[in-house]
Amino acid sequence: MSSRRQNRPVSPARTAENGRYAAARGWTGIVFIATSLDGFIARGNNTIEWLTEPDTTVTHPGDAALTAGAVAAIPGARRRAAGPGEAAGDYAGLMARVDHLVMGRNTYETVAGFPEWPYPETPVIVLSTSLPRDADARVTIAGSVAEATDLLSRARAGGVYIDGGQTVRAFLEEGLVDELTVSRAPILLGSGLPLFGGGAPEQRLRLDAAATGPNGLVHARYTVLRDDAGAGRGSGATLRK
Amino acid sequence: MSSRRQNRPVSPARTAENGRYAAARGWTGIVFIATSLDGFIARGNNTIEWLTEPDTTVTHPGDAALTAGAVAAIPGARRRAAGPGEAAGDYAGLMARVDHLVMGRNTYETVAGFPEWPYPETPVIVLSTSLPRDADARVTIAGSVAEATDLLSRARAGGVYIDGGQTVRAFLEEGLVDELTVSRAPILLGSGLPLFGGGAPEQRLRLDAAATGPNGLVHARYTVLRDDAGAGRGSGATLRK
Repeated sequence: MSSRRQNRPVSPARTAENGRYAAARGWTGIVFIATSLDGFIARGNNTIEWLTEPDTTVTHPGDAALTAGAVAAIPGARRRAAGPGEAAGDYAGLMARVDHLVMGRNTYETVAGFPEWPYPETPVIVLSTSLPRDADARVTIAGSVAEATDLLSRARAGGVYIDGGQTVRAFLEEGLVDELTVSRAPILLGSGLPLFGGGAPEQRLRLDAAATGPNGLVHARYTVLRDDAGAGRGSGATLRK
Repeated sequence: MSSRRQNRPVSPARTAENGRYAAARGWTGIVFIATSLDGFIARGNNTIEWLTEPDTTVTHPGDAALTAGAVAAIPGARRRAAGPGEAAGDYAGLMARVDHLVMGRNTYETVAGFPEWPYPETPVIVLSTSLPRDADARVTIAGSVAEATDLLSRARAGGVYIDGGQTVRAFLEEGLVDELTVSRAPILLGSGLPLFGGGAPEQRLRLDAAATGPNGLVHARYTVLRDDAGAGRGSGATLRK
């Protein structure tokens, strides 16, 4: 499967087919990302202090799980899917299911600038066409989504954390995201780097859990639906000619 | 105040000043609007059946208030503000506080196409530069935001429901929105009519309540902050030169 992927160009028309690949691929693609209420992951100058250094003088409602008990046995849940007790926005619970990370170069450079490398135990794949293959011994460089998925399949990945706006969009369009948590920060940025947009195919979601977090965050966790009804009715494969 | 508004052109640089107008204006600007997870209020062809006719074969978590009891006395709450017991997404509770509606021409035309006019008891202002003043006896046409705010002040409006993407953006930019509920539907549309975007000034928000609704909706209700800290630190007035 992985060699077929590598030999075929990426095109939106293959989305439904990728959905079938996705069902067979064995690993779960997990997105966990924060945006402003208007959908930006960073300001235009890449700053996120509106997220990391929130205004503590404002009192928001406290931390509360929205749907405790509502997420029971999930039909067709994949390996490495969130369990019934995992609240939306539970980063520790999510990371316990993650054994590989995939991120774009921008996100990598942000993470590489942290005082300490935050993933000493977890293999990290960086999607980049410009970084040399030996740029950083802590990561593996992949030149394309197809190469990254090939690496993940060969590593028998289970739970894959997909990070960064461009990388999330690319994996979504290829049908490689199964679980999607979006955490909304209480601010309108007005402009910046958008998480979504750009004409991706439609994808129906199932809300699995929601919760408020500290500092006014609202977390919502979704499963990306890939059943026949979805493929026939609302997926990009039928809408994009 | 209202005649001054009318005589001055609308410009982003006046946002902080408008914030002061807003504090004095006497009515509360309320937004209650649904979007896809990726922030679109309608498909590019204006259809919203993804919202109004959701797929009932998918089981989402049930209706649950997130922050019951968390919204206590709100410091500086305006007249017509949501009470402590009002859950996010409570349309009936919200409409009980609304005595005027403002909408754009697109929204008006959608509403006018309904089998029954849904607001027989509530004065409706339609923002339009093209509709004739006597287009529809059920509504009042206003040619600008300034004219609409003048009409609202003269009518001694209390709670004003602001509807439609362009109208919401225009009122937000003018500092005329106090309360903002966004309800996220569990779908990625990929493209369509966006609620936000277009370089509006930054605005900090306070999360007041959140809840899940039927069909996988996640409601979050915010107060638009206009205190000195906000104006000095993050508002568009200081960031837009």
